[in-house]
Amino acid sequence: MICDPSLNADLDRAFHARAVAIVGVSRDDANPPPGYTGLKILRLLRDAGFPGRLYPINPRATVIDGLPVFASVRAIPGPVDLVIVTIPAQGVPAVLEDCLAAGVVNVHVCSAGFSETGLTEGREAEDRLKEIASRGRLRVVGPNCLGYHVPASRMNMYQEVRLLGGPVAFLSQSGGHAQDYVGYGPHLGIGFSKVVSYGNALLMDATDFLQYLADDEETQVICLYLEGTRNGPKLRMLAREIGRSKPIIMWKGGLTSQGARAAKTHTSSLAGEGRVWEAFFRQTGVVQAGSIEEMADIAMTFLRLKPITRARAAVIVGGGGSNVANGDICAQEGVELPPLGPETRGRLLGLLSLVNQSVVNPIDSPAVPYNASLLRQVLEALTADPSVDLVILHMSTFFPKRATPEAIAAFKACVTDFGRRAPEKPVVVAIRGSDRMGAEAEAMLRDMRTAGITTYSSMRAACRALKRFADYHRFQAAWGQAGQDRAGPP
Amino acid sequence: MICDPSLNADLDRAFHARAVAIVGVSRDDANPPPGYTGLKILRLLRDAGFPGRLYPINPRATVIDGLPVFASVRAIPGPVDLVIVTIPAQGVPAVLEDCLAAGVVNVHVCSAGFSETGLTEGREAEDRLKEIASRGRLRVVGPNCLGYHVPASRMNMYQEVRLLGGPVAFLSQSGGHAQDYVGYGPHLGIGFSKVVSYGNALLMDATDFLQYLADDEETQVICLYLEGTRNGPKLRMLAREIGRSKPIIMWKGGLTSQGARAAKTHTSSLAGEGRVWEAFFRQTGVVQAGSIEEMADIAMTFLRLKPITRARAAVIVGGGGSNVANGDICAQEGVELPPLGPETRGRLLGLLSLVNQSVVNPIDSPAVPYNASLLRQVLEALTADPSVDLVILHMSTFFPKRATPEAIAAFKACVTDFGRRAPEKPVVVAIRGSDRMGAEAEAMLRDMRTAGITTYSSMRAACRALKRFADYHRFQAAWGQAGQDRAGPP
Repeated sequence: MICDPSLNADLDRAFHARAVAIVGVSRDDANPPPGYTGLKILRLLRDAGFPGRLYPINPRATVIDGLPVFASVRAIPGPVDLVIVTIPAQGVPAVLEDCLAAGVVNVHVCSAGFSETGLTEGREAEDRLKEIASRGRLRVVGPNCLGYHVPASRMNMYQEVRLLGGPVAFLSQSGGHAQDYVGYGPHLGIGFSKVVSYGNALLMDATDFLQYLADDEETQVICLYLEGTRNGPKLRMLAREIGRSKPIIMWKGGLTSQGARAAKTHTSSLAGEGRVWEAFFRQTGVVQAGSIEEMADIAMTFLRLKPITRARAAVIVGGGGSNVANGDICAQEGVELPPLGPETRGRLLGLLSLVNQSVVNPIDSPAVPYNASLLRQVLEALTADPSVDLVILHMSTFFPKRATPEAIAAFKACVTDFGRRAPEKPVVVAIRGSDRMGAEAEAMLRDMRTAGITTYSSMRAACRALKRFADYHRFQAAWGQAGQDRAGPP
Repeated sequence: MICDPSLNADLDRAFHARAVAIVGVSRDDANPPPGYTGLKILRLLRDAGFPGRLYPINPRATVIDGLPVFASVRAIPGPVDLVIVTIPAQGVPAVLEDCLAAGVVNVHVCSAGFSETGLTEGREAEDRLKEIASRGRLRVVGPNCLGYHVPASRMNMYQEVRLLGGPVAFLSQSGGHAQDYVGYGPHLGIGFSKVVSYGNALLMDATDFLQYLADDEETQVICLYLEGTRNGPKLRMLAREIGRSKPIIMWKGGLTSQGARAAKTHTSSLAGEGRVWEAFFRQTGVVQAGSIEEMADIAMTFLRLKPITRARAAVIVGGGGSNVANGDICAQEGVELPPLGPETRGRLLGLLSLVNQSVVNPIDSPAVPYNASLLRQVLEALTADPSVDLVILHMSTFFPKRATPEAIAAFKACVTDFGRRAPEKPVVVAIRGSDRMGAEAEAMLRDMRTAGITTYSSMRAACRALKRFADYHRFQAAWGQAGQDRAGPP
């Protein structure tokens, strides 16, 4: 998987930086321009407790926030693992020259104003960066990005987030999406190994970071937001290979012509045609997501559940209308609701009355969540059915209000106990009402997740994640059976 | 539109009932069965401040909750406008006989356990109800439903809801969906004229209630959740005719075979094939929704916005990744993002820098929401563009945290002012992050809506509602042009 022999060691130095210089730190941010400033980044790193050295660079200042200021990268007395550049585009080439002269390897060009503007100056400035980098071993991420965010190194690049380390990596051409994922992930128990916002992908793109992550022991699941690539075949090869041991979940931005138009002005990416990307997903087994929330749901599923290769679900909800909706949602999302076997139906008929309930799958039973002994027996019957791969309990936000505290505790104990005893047939919860109802659903979601229950914010979210999870494992199983020729699944 | 001459007067009596009898009120609800009980309904009505007479019926009690109890409907001394039946299915025929004998016209059979069970007894019980009703003028809603909910009459059938009257009617084969809509609607400013949960639709179905609503002055928008119908041609005819003056928004449950299977066990409905219903929507101009939340978004749009016949949008968001997503979402949902005219682009280029921003539609500008003077100029430029029908401001939940209170107030004033001055080009807000992030988004949504701004909970929700809103008006305009022959649009 090594395409570039020194790349991993170079990036290791950036991800575990002990000395960071920030070019373009003003004394104050009274009227900051849109986007990030050097001072903002300096403060984010300090507030996160970054333990290494920080060198603010500004030729017209001596001390900022109590730190000594240097006139240029070359003036820094000692090694620098990462230089972050925040000055306007036209000044960036000179900084790269300084980095070359000072022997710096890793540079993060945060500054925007390059080819994504569509202006000649922007494209020319990028050409100059390329030319300078070609004269030495510069590893430049960007321009127009937020670079490296590594919770374990206390390197924080995002506002108002909880710094949580963990086994999920995220490579993103959008700093905004990275902000969203870093902020949202911890709500689902997702912590991050490395988050890379790489913007215009001028000198390093997804393939470089994928090479690194392939061998990164801290990363188990790789998430990727991509607008375009100049290395299609390499990306396809890497994705197929890496995907065998680490799932790759990818959101492709700009799949439509309207989205592609925006991608061009965002990261100067040529988004490519939708059908080309459809083929990419089909051929590589990369798991497709359509938003940060969906990506997080899928990553959570990989972190929590044992592999399943089919997503034939038994679904329970209280309420006939919701039960009909569940049938439609599952069908629309490709989740099969198998007819239950005669033995299962017999057991359910012994447990549930047919008045206001139904034991055809999907199952309508208002009573089940409120009665843990009934729930246990129903789950035992369903998970014993060979046609059922998993059980989805679709739970209304009325539940925490209408059930007694004892009933809520018994419900949670029953579901977590099932997860421990029979993890090969997952029992998960989907919240009903949460897509829109805000605070109530959020509280219920948090409560269920805190109890250790795999919980999705809606039935549709559960179906989308579980279907993709099973599809990934079926793809890899077929690939495995295809043997040594590596021809991949049919 | 009158198919049944006495129906409207009969239903008027039910919707404005001054005397309601409830058959099957127990002294207490210590171990209630799943579903509604008579005592629960009695208490819902009393708690809602129902001003009419309430007659609990129970042959084995004399006083319940301080009210005198009667042994049967026949024992009530005086006229009864509505009888609500909550006893088990096998006892319902005798109650209907009593109603006939006592001259009662309106009966709501709440009880379940009929044909939806799939059991012979259930079907036979329904046949008996039909036979009894055929002997007189009984208007029976149900069985297996929650009947009539009329805020203006203080007739409440749902738990934990705010009783809000208004111009939206909802006809629903699902009591659960009715509960959800009645609970959710007021968050969007939606109040209800009449809500009818009609379950198995044995003796009255959607077409009967549509006939009533066609002439109901309290109803401007009709929402409908339907699982099946035995009167397809009549439903089509009514929907086309009524839709000319009152939009009909319909969620069809059971469009897939898995959903249809559930519908059969819910309301004993034959859901019909998906393609038949596709044709229904295409031919009638009925607006299709796929959930209660979507139905509510569309109804809100009808209540708030001036008609538009196309949904060519200018979209603004802060953040390149979100901007790409907006392009894709709009394309997926059929909302066109027209290229802006040269004059518009010139005006925008004079207002927005190209660094970290983009003036190609969709527009990426983090600065715009934070600067009301800039916002006003941008909106003026966009709404002056003849290719733009509406503007969507896609706003992050970071906004209320990062903007000053003055900036927030100025933003709201600017948008509402635009709505007043130029309502023919709506400016709406869509919240970014709200599908999942709960409390923060909910608070922001409430704040925007309180300020009088038409606000959607996500970009996708906005697109889906606005597209359907414009499609409705385009359909009706084409129909109008088709003239007297009433052949409808091509």
